[in-house]
Amino acid sequence: MIKKLALLFPLAVLLFAFMPVKKKKVIFFGDSITQQGAQPGGYITRIEDLCKKDGLSDQFDFVGKGVGGNKVTDLFLRFQPDVLDQHPDIVVVYVGINDVWHKTSSGTGTDFDKFGKFYDAIISTLKKQGIQPIICTPSVIGERNDFTNQQDGDLNLYAKWIREYAAKNNVPLVDLRNLFLDYLRQNNPTNAEKGILTVDRVHLNEKGNQLVSEAMWKAIKQFK
Amino acid sequence: MIKKLALLFPLAVLLFAFMPVKKKKVIFFGDSITQQGAQPGGYITRIEDLCKKDGLSDQFDFVGKGVGGNKVTDLFLRFQPDVLDQHPDIVVVYVGINDVWHKTSSGTGTDFDKFGKFYDAIISTLKKQGIQPIICTPSVIGERNDFTNQQDGDLNLYAKWIREYAAKNNVPLVDLRNLFLDYLRQNNPTNAEKGILTVDRVHLNEKGNQLVSEAMWKAIKQFK
Amino acid sequence: MIKKLALLFPLAVLLFAFMPVKKKKVIFFGDSITQQGAQPGGYITRIEDLCKKDGLSDQFDFVGKGVGGNKVTDLFLRFQPDVLDQHPDIVVVYVGINDVWHKTSSGTGTDFDKFGKFYDAIISTLKKQGIQPIICTPSVIGERNDFTNQQDGDLNLYAKWIREYAAKNNVPLVDLRNLFLDYLRQNNPTNAEKGILTVDRVHLNEKGNQLVSEAMWKAIKQFK
Amino acid sequence: MIKKLALLFPLAVLLFAFMPVKKKKVIFFGDSITQQGAQPGGYITRIEDLCKKDGLSDQFDFVGKGVGGNKVTDLFLRFQPDVLDQHPDIVVVYVGINDVWHKTSSGTGTDFDKFGKFYDAIISTLKKQGIQPIICTPSVIGERNDFTNQQDGDLNLYAKWIREYAAKNNVPLVDLRNLFLDYLRQNNPTNAEKGILTVDRVHLNEKGNQLVSEAMWKAIKQFK
Repeated sequence: MIKKLALLFPLAVLLFAFMPVKKKKVIFFGDSITQQGAQPGGYITRIEDLCKKDGLSDQFDFVGKGVGGNKVTDLFLRFQPDVLDQHPDIVVVYVGINDVWHKTSSGTGTDFDKFGKFYDAIISTLKKQGIQPIICTPSVIGERNDFTNQQDGDLNLYAKWIREYAAKNNVPLVDLRNLFLDYLRQNNPTNAEKGILTVDRVHLNEKGNQLVSEAMWKAIKQFK
Repeated sequence: MIKKLALLFPLAVLLFAFMPVKKKKVIFFGDSITQQGAQPGGYITRIEDLCKKDGLSDQFDFVGKGVGGNKVTDLFLRFQPDVLDQHPDIVVVYVGINDVWHKTSSGTGTDFDKFGKFYDAIISTLKKQGIQPIICTPSVIGERNDFTNQQDGDLNLYAKWIREYAAKNNVPLVDLRNLFLDYLRQNNPTNAEKGILTVDRVHLNEKGNQLVSEAMWKAIKQFK
Repeated sequence: MIKKLALLFPLAVLLFAFMPVKKKKVIFFGDSITQQGAQPGGYITRIEDLCKKDGLSDQFDFVGKGVGGNKVTDLFLRFQPDVLDQHPDIVVVYVGINDVWHKTSSGTGTDFDKFGKFYDAIISTLKKQGIQPIICTPSVIGERNDFTNQQDGDLNLYAKWIREYAAKNNVPLVDLRNLFLDYLRQNNPTNAEKGILTVDRVHLNEKGNQLVSEAMWKAIKQFK
Repeated sequence: MIKKLALLFPLAVLLFAFMPVKKKKVIFFGDSITQQGAQPGGYITRIEDLCKKDGLSDQFDFVGKGVGGNKVTDLFLRFQPDVLDQHPDIVVVYVGINDVWHKTSSGTGTDFDKFGKFYDAIISTLKKQGIQPIICTPSVIGERNDFTNQQDGDLNLYAKWIREYAAKNNVPLVDLRNLFLDYLRQNNPTNAEKGILTVDRVHLNEKGNQLVSEAMWKAIKQFK
């Protein structure tokens, strides 16, 4: 019996070599930044380019599932149809800006404790279903680098929670907020509130999309 | 065969007469008003009294599951442990005040569209599990009777949605808001903002608790 | 002596008949609705037309002083240069929408008590300086006619205060809010939230501008 | 003539030495923190103690004019009766916390640009009337020392504006915010949100009152 299997082994290897690789499906789950990310020049499009450059185009499929104005509760409500029913292998969750921003722009932000509960409901379900989550801290609302943007305190708080959640639950983290803050400390000498990484304090310009794409791709390609 | 069954029938009746009735478990699912409702003088305690008066104490069990500050998303998050795991027969849902109020008191109210989605997630699940829902419109934030309370517009909107949801889905409705507005039109000649049915514009005084208890009991006892 | 004067009187009348009439300067002091009111088709432009139609063009000059986003505190801060320094005869004050609206759209609405204090500071000063004020209730934020627009409660409250202020201080009132509500009750059968008198729930369309112009002109021409 | 005056001079000096010194009246103009400051243990009471210790009790009178919930617009509205009509020599202005806080707690915070305009209206008038202003940055809303308190961004922004205003207009500054932040960096190892300098994230405890009193007294006694 063992002999026969031994004979079969090289054959199996040979077969696999010619079998089409099952591509990994990566879903980007988020708000308007992610919605724009799927457009030409957007961060998802740039990740496709980086993937190609690394010769890994046959291993990954990238799908944008961003909807403008979304908060964590919106992600939760469309989690089944937009994520689980699509059978992804990897899900990159990039949310939190509207949860904080809407507190003053419409009075319907997300309470800190509930942000964590809905966030965890999403990530826990992904893990239970064998889907790899990658999570991100919210980037910026305003680019001033001396913590004088109105929502800086809250963004820091929600980002800190995500960092701690990632560590505690062993989830890969793309720390966009720290990445942005570091970049702005060095590249925003006039303390402008937009125009460095964003066009309007929130939505990414070319440089912002590039920064996000590089950080995310680094995290994603570990799962090749 | 028919004869034998005919003989057995009176016996069965006799047996049932001595069998302990399986009481219907009624859960009140809501916010601080419901939390206070379970206390002496509260609306749940008063429903127990009304039930006793009607000689139906052996048919109903009343359980308060109210938590201060709760919005529909909070109910949703504790729905499994606090409601479904308790195996109720009837669930009275009384929520919406904080969803509207928190828009200005903490910036974390509930978007109108999301209120409906989470609300429906709760009621639909109850129905699927064979649990009878009874739903209520949110009562008041401020008792002035000329629509000059700050949240009147929003409360009217959310209440209207609940009314339409009840009609469309054939769910029994306790229209607390209309009940309160009618009462205030007739019993608030000085247009006071509190002290008629509430102690503080929101939480019920004796009269308010009595009004709610009577309206709810009328809806509940149909399911005896 | 008396005789001589009697002889002079007919002469004086004759002189006045040929003297150029000193036109009354009317300033419209308000927010973006007033800013747009000065444009072609706007309510101020329409008042000019109505004035012409009534053959009173030689008696009135109309000047728009509206600035987008203005609340009563903004009016107060630019009161000296934009109103007093212009030496008007009549000032039409149309403010209050942003005072209410900004509570949820930016967290910077005007407290009810402070609205009254700054409002009174403006009107009292006008009166002291012999300038005729005409005041208006805030029109609408949303055109639904069943009091389900989010800000209806607050708008009703602030409008009610203005009505009472007008009565108590004997200031001519243009009750735009009641005018709009009456119109919408009769002309908004589908309960639409915009498109009847506004283009976007707040800013006036053709019909809205016409309605405002007629009501204001009626109040202004009393002072011919 | 010159001779005679020369003879009188020593006499004049002698006279002044026995004349009662006209005390300098110091008004503390602010919100609930200042209202509490006038109570036993409060920062104003502690300044009186420090003044006594320095042997300067005969040179200063301290008057608290703090009102709970006050923003810069409230100070402005009661500026005439509460400050100017009291004929102070020095006015310490400590405001800004509610201007920021009320954005989320009631939707009626103060727009950044209007904060500056009303603030300047107060300080400019003091200067014009020969009254010495001393201004303070707003302390804290939450004592966490890693910029994760919700209002940190806005407090930093408003504090920065006050610092720049002080420098530009040559007004003595008590930089309470930086003083508090420095203290919290060194004395809040658990990153607690209250209990170090405040009892409730905002209002001062014993240590907080002491810190404020020392910093203010240092600024005030320069004007002895």
